[in-house]
Amino acid sequence: MRIDLNADVGESYGAYRYGDDEGVFPFVSSANIACGFHAGDPGVMRSTVQLASRHGVAIGAHPGFQDLSGFGRREMHLSPSEVENLVAYQVGALAGIAAAEGGRLSHVKPHGALYNMAARDPAMADAIARAVRGVDGSLVLFGLSDSQLIAAGDRAGLRVASEVFADRGYRPDGSLAPRGTPGAVVTDAAEVASRAGGMASRQTVTALDGTSVSVKADTVCIHGDTPGAAVLARAVRDALIVAGIEILPPGGDRRR
Amino acid sequence: MRIDLNADVGESYGAYRYGDDEGVFPFVSSANIACGFHAGDPGVMRSTVQLASRHGVAIGAHPGFQDLSGFGRREMHLSPSEVENLVAYQVGALAGIAAAEGGRLSHVKPHGALYNMAARDPAMADAIARAVRGVDGSLVLFGLSDSQLIAAGDRAGLRVASEVFADRGYRPDGSLAPRGTPGAVVTDAAEVASRAGGMASRQTVTALDGTSVSVKADTVCIHGDTPGAAVLARAVRDALIVAGIEILPPGGDRRR
Amino acid sequence: MRIDLNADVGESYGAYRYGDDEGVFPFVSSANIACGFHAGDPGVMRSTVQLASRHGVAIGAHPGFQDLSGFGRREMHLSPSEVENLVAYQVGALAGIAAAEGGRLSHVKPHGALYNMAARDPAMADAIARAVRGVDGSLVLFGLSDSQLIAAGDRAGLRVASEVFADRGYRPDGSLAPRGTPGAVVTDAAEVASRAGGMASRQTVTALDGTSVSVKADTVCIHGDTPGAAVLARAVRDALIVAGIEILPPGGDRRR
Amino acid sequence: MRIDLNADVGESYGAYRYGDDEGVFPFVSSANIACGFHAGDPGVMRSTVQLASRHGVAIGAHPGFQDLSGFGRREMHLSPSEVENLVAYQVGALAGIAAAEGGRLSHVKPHGALYNMAARDPAMADAIARAVRGVDGSLVLFGLSDSQLIAAGDRAGLRVASEVFADRGYRPDGSLAPRGTPGAVVTDAAEVASRAGGMASRQTVTALDGTSVSVKADTVCIHGDTPGAAVLARAVRDALIVAGIEILPPGGDRRR
Repeated sequence: MRIDLNADVGESYGAYRYGDDEGVFPFVSSANIACGFHAGDPGVMRSTVQLASRHGVAIGAHPGFQDLSGFGRREMHLSPSEVENLVAYQVGALAGIAAAEGGRLSHVKPHGALYNMAARDPAMADAIARAVRGVDGSLVLFGLSDSQLIAAGDRAGLRVASEVFADRGYRPDGSLAPRGTPGAVVTDAAEVASRAGGMASRQTVTALDGTSVSVKADTVCIHGDTPGAAVLARAVRDALIVAGIEILPPGGDRRR
Repeated sequence: MRIDLNADVGESYGAYRYGDDEGVFPFVSSANIACGFHAGDPGVMRSTVQLASRHGVAIGAHPGFQDLSGFGRREMHLSPSEVENLVAYQVGALAGIAAAEGGRLSHVKPHGALYNMAARDPAMADAIARAVRGVDGSLVLFGLSDSQLIAAGDRAGLRVASEVFADRGYRPDGSLAPRGTPGAVVTDAAEVASRAGGMASRQTVTALDGTSVSVKADTVCIHGDTPGAAVLARAVRDALIVAGIEILPPGGDRRR
Repeated sequence: MRIDLNADVGESYGAYRYGDDEGVFPFVSSANIACGFHAGDPGVMRSTVQLASRHGVAIGAHPGFQDLSGFGRREMHLSPSEVENLVAYQVGALAGIAAAEGGRLSHVKPHGALYNMAARDPAMADAIARAVRGVDGSLVLFGLSDSQLIAAGDRAGLRVASEVFADRGYRPDGSLAPRGTPGAVVTDAAEVASRAGGMASRQTVTALDGTSVSVKADTVCIHGDTPGAAVLARAVRDALIVAGIEILPPGGDRRR
Repeated sequence: MRIDLNADVGESYGAYRYGDDEGVFPFVSSANIACGFHAGDPGVMRSTVQLASRHGVAIGAHPGFQDLSGFGRREMHLSPSEVENLVAYQVGALAGIAAAEGGRLSHVKPHGALYNMAARDPAMADAIARAVRGVDGSLVLFGLSDSQLIAAGDRAGLRVASEVFADRGYRPDGSLAPRGTPGAVVTDAAEVASRAGGMASRQTVTALDGTSVSVKADTVCIHGDTPGAAVLARAVRDALIVAGIEILPPGGDRRR
């Protein structure tokens, strides 16, 4: 049994610091690095790649909408070809920075509104998959478990990684409870760790109504921009190791 | 005898059109494509790569300062590491777009103020050379003939291409006459073509005072943003061919 | 009888030229000047204000989404307070530029996707009206005739100007035929002029099915970014004058 | 005897927090609010204006170069008219936001590289003064004591405020010791407060070599982006009050 622990990192920009990258790097196996559109800049990307290399963590691109002031969290309506080129550009940019550091990319995980829209919209999802395959067909595409993005990755012949959230409440149909509703966010580290373990070992999660829901869990997202992120990351990692689950990046056996 | 004809292209942005790319592509052997910082956007980059492929023209990155409103022509004071990351980012971004189109890069030519500052400043020149080598050591670095950028490329072990300007007046010491001074710009197509031919075949150019100045001429820049650019490009190309000079991208024999 | 002729101008950016501002200025009474978010920059804004002053044309702000690469034509999902601040910022910025030139603003017309979304969405429309009233309650708010934006302006106690399009086909319900459908765009100058005259004098327009539709027509938009824009603008102006209709900016009697 | 205490605030951007605005507002009399080019966005500007109003602090514009990734600290070479329009735009934008909140501006203080270049360069300084006078001739222009910017403000007929730094070491000629040299930065709160008091009451400061240097001190800058900024601000304020010095914004008697 194995699973990947991923974190969104490199979201600082210029003089601005964001998230606790140094705190979470020791505990994750994959890092999704912002590519300069919703967050990140060439210097931040470079130092984040260095940090990933130092910790032996797989480097992935985390492309988003070109909306720095909205942090890529606001929906924008782009054509599929605009989305495709936006993603190819950002993945290439990070690949360039990584190459300058002697590293290379292992995966791509869209950010924020781009991620959420692609989970629902097959045309946008196909555009992203096309971009990833075009830039480098060996990259693993991360997407919300059971979403259009995973389906698009399959259609494109890419390796995919289904992502789950150990710190979010699930509804009986397998969807995430919307933020702001009761039980939508789990903050207790032990509970998050226990949920991650269940997702990894049994591919199930207990929904808000107590029923068991099956999930496809290739990778678990660790949020690095919440207080106590590092503590949470360590708790999840330790719980998984205790449960005998290996923590490895998706496709890591083939690339690293 | 051989020489390269290069043009700066892909400098449109969103709804804005710039230069006559379609007009000059038939006549050049290398295209320097803007990478989204001083001009260009992911969609423009994609369609410009397509145009280059259709014409069998070598694709190069044309990175600039992040100053869209100044078109990368205003000096900015960055640290060498900022310059290095800025270049690695942009070269990688274009490589990503090119890969999505099944193409790959052959060279890098800095743009505008970045090009001019790197011609004089060894630290900035070394930063650019380091970025190019880091991203892909097989890329050819274009720089002003006899400049610090060429020296830095040599130091970094890169293949370099010394650039000359057939439409600009030279001073006896081999430097360009500043724009605005008499004879600084040559607009007559026949004369530009004749100068290009002399530079290619004899590696000399007649300076403003009538003396002959030796130049290293691996590539000649064709400006695509001046009226009549296509006519000029054709005249230069035809004159070179008549003179028995082959028009080939630098390093083209090894890469294409 | 009176009507306003308005044009969207000042949409160049840095080295990029857009539209035929010099061509249409002689014929319009109001100019909507881009404010640096979807188009325009401080220098372009300054020279456009100068042009407006020279032609005695009323100066208005033309705020848009912060999406230069999409020219403000792509829908973005912002909160009402984000929209309010975005508009207040841009209107203030143009007011600053205008003041530096000794001028002042007469009106505000949102651009592109912001205009279209505000026509349908009361919350966004109210946010825009709130921003305009907050910056300067004497500004006239331009909006699509019979839209939520006009209603919001009324609610906010602003003077409003209902905008019609003489070069667009109308459906029997008074809405615009979508671009790309037959009859959606009228290009014949005489017909555009005749439609403008009818809208101004009888407040009606002939819909695509031949029925007469009543419209509220305070201002007619002249597109400056289409080929022949100046010819069209002149034809419309002349037709209106021949019909005895005065061409005046809305609220012009009170402010100029 | 009176002096102004000013702080640079509103330098957050989107999801990014910067500085301790809430901590320093209780102690200063003037706030210089970033205007969206080097830092700040319309929403941050709005909430910072609200904060200033709540604390009865004078609102000023803090315009900078359009270089968010460099935080406006990198020199850029612009023409005087580019500088003038850049400043008019940003001052107007903040005036718009302030008006939406029922407030109005009292002063302008350029930021970072723009401030430093204008201290040395009369043409740039005149461009800034021209912009300020053009937008609103009653605004007070802040500049480094004894600099070209103060001279330009005088030439333009503006009220000016000479700024001093209580937390920086001075050289015998009245210039600031460069950061990184011994004694360049004073961190002890009591010493900073004592220096501020001496500057305000005697218009002198003790230079690094022990000599007494005369300074023109209308306003003292409190840095809000250093650890312990609020504690320092309070210490300076208290020391000034104990010394019988009134803390008032420049021109505050005329505008507030």
